[in-house]
Amino acid sequence: MSEGRLYGVGVGPGDPELLTVKATRVIAAAPVVAFFAKAGRRGNARGIVDGWIMSWHVELPLYYPMTTESHFDDPPYREALKDFYRKSAAAIAVHLEAGRDVALLAEGDPLFYGSFMHLFVRLRERFAVTIVPGVSSICGAWGAAGEAMTWGDDCLVVLPATLPLDKLARRLEVAEAAVIMKLGRNFARAKEALVRAGMAERAIYVERATMAGETVMPLEQKADGPAPYFSLILVPGRGRRP
Amino acid sequence: MSEGRLYGVGVGPGDPELLTVKATRVIAAAPVVAFFAKAGRRGNARGIVDGWIMSWHVELPLYYPMTTESHFDDPPYREALKDFYRKSAAAIAVHLEAGRDVALLAEGDPLFYGSFMHLFVRLRERFAVTIVPGVSSICGAWGAAGEAMTWGDDCLVVLPATLPLDKLARRLEVAEAAVIMKLGRNFARAKEALVRAGMAERAIYVERATMAGETVMPLEQKADGPAPYFSLILVPGRGRRP
Repeated sequence: MSEGRLYGVGVGPGDPELLTVKATRVIAAAPVVAFFAKAGRRGNARGIVDGWIMSWHVELPLYYPMTTESHFDDPPYREALKDFYRKSAAAIAVHLEAGRDVALLAEGDPLFYGSFMHLFVRLRERFAVTIVPGVSSICGAWGAAGEAMTWGDDCLVVLPATLPLDKLARRLEVAEAAVIMKLGRNFARAKEALVRAGMAERAIYVERATMAGETVMPLEQKADGPAPYFSLILVPGRGRRP
Repeated sequence: MSEGRLYGVGVGPGDPELLTVKATRVIAAAPVVAFFAKAGRRGNARGIVDGWIMSWHVELPLYYPMTTESHFDDPPYREALKDFYRKSAAAIAVHLEAGRDVALLAEGDPLFYGSFMHLFVRLRERFAVTIVPGVSSICGAWGAAGEAMTWGDDCLVVLPATLPLDKLARRLEVAEAAVIMKLGRNFARAKEALVRAGMAERAIYVERATMAGETVMPLEQKADGPAPYFSLILVPGRGRRP
């Protein structure tokens, strides 16, 4: 009996219609569909593919450990995550060893931030893996905003707002276009970095792009305080355009 | 009679299966499908959607002006391009004014580099426009390479190789992960910038990702000389991973 294949399936930014044809085919053919979720929730990725899950699918939810939103540098949190990824990889390996293909869902694109990669690096030496690229959250966001992001020689910089202020500022200095992700409680710092870079006036705040409750507004109109998980800031480029 | 709507349809990096469900629906419903192509060619975007074009579709090819691969700063080249975009926008406007929706195809994602944006900015004030995000060429490339690109706090920098060497080098200094696009005759300069940044050893060269003839190799194994149009260089991030 041959082993199963792991598929890392990008499910796009939120709108179920932004699944690729390949993603729908892979999910339809996979006996096992695995996905990350918070305990007690169905998870966003699983919600996106709902129309493609059949009664015969084996569903394998991978529940993040219950934590008190600790910082990543906190050793117990880091250990809990490590243990979670190890156990999740083992749970998937059971199916692969039994010859069953597993479609592991990833929000956006599988290899652009996100939890999928932590299982990918743990499983790729032992099993065959196929990556199914997806529409990334950043493409979903600038599509929702209707902003042409990069022109000609523009350099695009993608930044997690978790970086310290000086690192954010230094990276924005060389950016013609920018995206700041992972806002959450880091929203004020991200905004401050954009003000220092002289980019705040043309920055756009996007929340829940391509999903219910989608919101687009100039950054300057966004109220202070934390931003939700599905939010980011765009600074469109202004490069050459004949 | 109401006017037609313009759809900017991302068709993904090359594999027809990487079309989104939304793209296939929009193309199937649009009476007119427009696309960019070199004179005498069908064009790559048109090839990707071939399975979704019906006999009743009106096809509107937009042929780039014949030029001698001039540099963008060359005024006659710039004028020829400007004229081309103006005429292309006018050709699309004829259909929209007559009440026909137009699906304008864009390789990769519509708002991430590329010709679509030049028509978008010319038409969006006069007509309703819907953007259909696509799988970008960079996601296709790192999926083909099987490289997890960005981890944790990694900053991703996307650079056109058309930039001068000092600008490339300065931007790579602040990058944890990088993509260099538009290689062509700029390949040697891009490689030199990566060598200076100490990134050449872990860089990966990708050609024709998700298409026939897909090639992935360490940058150091890539022969000198120009690189083809569908090629780029990836430098995967090495950020935190529990």
